Parts: sequence; structure tokens; C-alpha cells
Amino acid sequence: MNGKFVVIEGLEGAGKSSAIAVCQRVLNDAQVKFVNTREPGGTPLAESLRSLVKATHEEKVSDATELLLMYAARSQLVENVINPALNRGDWVLGDRHDLSSQAYQGGGREIDKHKLEALADIVLGELKPNLTLYLDIDPKIGLARAANRGELDRIELEQLSFFERTREVYLNAAKNDSSIVTIDASLPMETVHTHIEKALKQFIDGANA
Amino acid sequence: MNGKFVVIEGLEGAGKSSAIAVCQRVLNDAQVKFVNTREPGGTPLAESLRSLVKATHEEKVSDATELLLMYAARSQLVENVINPALNRGDWVLGDRHDLSSQAYQGGGREIDKHKLEALADIVLGELKPNLTLYLDIDPKIGLARAANRGELDRIELEQLSFFERTREVYLNAAKNDSSIVTIDASLPMETVHTHIEKALKQFIDGANA
Repeated sequence: MNGKFVVIEGLEGAGKSSAIAVCQRVLNDAQVKFVNTREPGGTPLAESLRSLVKATHEEKVSDATELLLMYAARSQLVENVINPALNRGDWVLGDRHDLSSQAYQGGGREIDKHKLEALADIVLGELKPNLTLYLDIDPKIGLARAANRGELDRIELEQLSFFERTREVYLNAAKNDSSIVTIDASLPMETVHTHIEKALKQFIDGANA
Repeated sequence: MNGKFVVIEGLEGAGKSSAIAVCQRVLNDAQVKFVNTREPGGTPLAESLRSLVKATHEEKVSDATELLLMYAARSQLVENVINPALNRGDWVLGDRHDLSSQAYQGGGREIDKHKLEALADIVLGELKPNLTLYLDIDPKIGLARAANRGELDRIELEQLSFFERTREVYLNAAKNDSSIVTIDASLPMETVHTHIEKALKQFIDGANA
């Protein structure tokens, strides 16, 4: 049986890292074998692309270049890590995946939806996460948290309106896709973690049923 | 008036470098102001992508990744160098452009034509070379020449059949597009250079008419 693909999504400062730690514990407790991925990145070449796309360059990084680099990194990860893991029956726990591009490049950068669909078609084929936990946070709160953590990268330095458009895509996607579970990340951390644990446990139970 | 975009295309060992030197001399003699580009590459970020896509990696570089990196590099070059130059009336002399992707990734790697068209649509918009000089060479001869020059990169290490498919796309494109002039690169170098010079001079005369 194929493994399951679980993805954590959300804006900067939504609490993705600690959410992933919670998911790792839940998966381990349930004795599910899984691999961790992050996007962009997750293979040596994809990590090089991550560095390039997040760095501030002297030249302007065009929106199309950013978009193509995100999908180039995704392509390496999907072909070399995600698909092989799922095919051998392992689960994959992803720190971001395609929905991030839809939200950031489609929403934030306002790139035409059909261009993203064309790229997803090239890179993903039939691959789709089985469960996405979307940590929803008002960007004003999330960015303040992220700024407290230290230096912001090229994309994190965008205007607030960029992140508001990004959040809009996340919320719309969650409304229209039952595999996306929205977690209110503005609640106290303990409560957020309880909600994540509950959603993932329920999914594991369903997958094992 | 917009500048003109002149591109040199061809397989490894077809003699692109010396063809470019000839074109530079002809353009200088005609007092045409021009910028040189090469693909993949031509901006600092695009040159980083060139290094990544040409290097041999421990992981397999998927065909889709290679394709997306080529277009990411092209996107940077088009937006930051080619379009600005043409808009200010300069000419652009390109060492490879989109036809290389059609030939190598479309022909060599046998990637579906519609995928390449979708990427060209994202990256190029209305941009199209005004003149392409395609240096046609049997890959057996070209590769032998290229091998003599030193180490071959990841793509140049492909099988002969890869380059035969690549040449096929070049030849078909030249048949169907009058802006592509085929130069027989198997002739003695002096003759090849005379043909290049003649074709470019004729184009310059037409552009100035």
C-alpha cells in the first residue's frame, strides 16, 4: 500500500516548526514510518535552489524566475524523495508543498492561476497531499513573531498586503478542499498543538481502518 | 526603434564560439550597438543556475528540473537583460535561446511539446529572435570536436541518440521558420564564417532599409 503525504502549511510565524514536531511525535507514537521534507529544498540540489530563491540579489529576481525555481526544487524533491517514499509505503511529512506556491506566487505575487496549473502539471502529475494542516494566522501577528526570530529572507520582506493575498488563497483552498484542515494558529500554543494532534490522529485512524 | 535579437544555435562542437566572434565583428563594422548574452546564464543568478544545471550531481537531476532551471535562467535574462536592451534600441547577440530548450529538452529529453510551450508562454511573452543562425553539424562530428576541447558537462555526456533527436528539432524548426538560417557547419571554417557573415550582413541591411 502506498504511504500517505501529510503537509503543514501556513504563513511565516504561524508555528509550522513546532507543528511539525507535534506531527513527528504523533507519527512515531502510531509507529508510522515517515520521511521529513521541506520546500523549497529537501535534496542537495533543491537546497541550493532554496538558498538562491531566498537570498537577496543585486539584480531583481523576476516573479517568473521565483516561480520556476520553486517548481524546479519541487520537481527534484518529488522525483527523488516524495514519490519513492510513498511508493515503498512510507509516509511523507512535508514542511510546505504545492499549496505554498499557489498561495505565495499565485496570491502574493498575483501570478495567473493557469500558469501555476501548467507548472503543477509538469512537476506533480497525480501527486496530491492526503492531508494538509493549514495553520491560519493573521499576517500582522505572524510576521511580528517571525521578525522576533531574526532576519527575514527576501520573500518574508514583502509588504503586509502580499501576505494578506497569500492568506486569502490558503483560506479559499481550505474552504474548497476537504483534505485541507484549518487550524486556528492564533490560539494558545498548547491548544494549537492539541488540535494538530487530534486532526492527525483522526487521519491515521482513518488510513488504518 | 526596438533593437534586433540575433541568436546563434547549434549542437556541441558546431563552432558557436567562433561564429559569435564573427557576428561581433560584423555588428561592430556596421556600427550596431549590441549586448552579448549566453544561455543558460547572462546574469549573476542565471549564471549560478547554469553551473547547477551543467554540473554532475550525486542525485539524479530529473528532466523536469532541468527544464525548469533552463527557463528560470531564461526568465532572469529576458527580464533583466534582453528586454531592456531591445527596448532601448540596442541589439542582442545571443549564444543560444529558447530554440535550445525546444531542441535539447524537447528533442533530446523527449519532453512533451505542450509543456515547453507553457513555459515559453510564462517566460517569453511576445519575445522572439529576429534572426537565428543555426550551425548544423552531424552530432558524431560535433561531439568529437567538443570532446577534444576538454571535459564534457552533464548534458554533453548524453548518448549520441540524444543529440540526433536534438538536431532533428533544429532542422525541423529551420524548415518551418524563415527567421532561422541554417549554416552547414561541416564545411571548412573559413567557408562557414563567410556564410555567417553574409547572412548577418544581409539581415542588417534589411533592418536598416
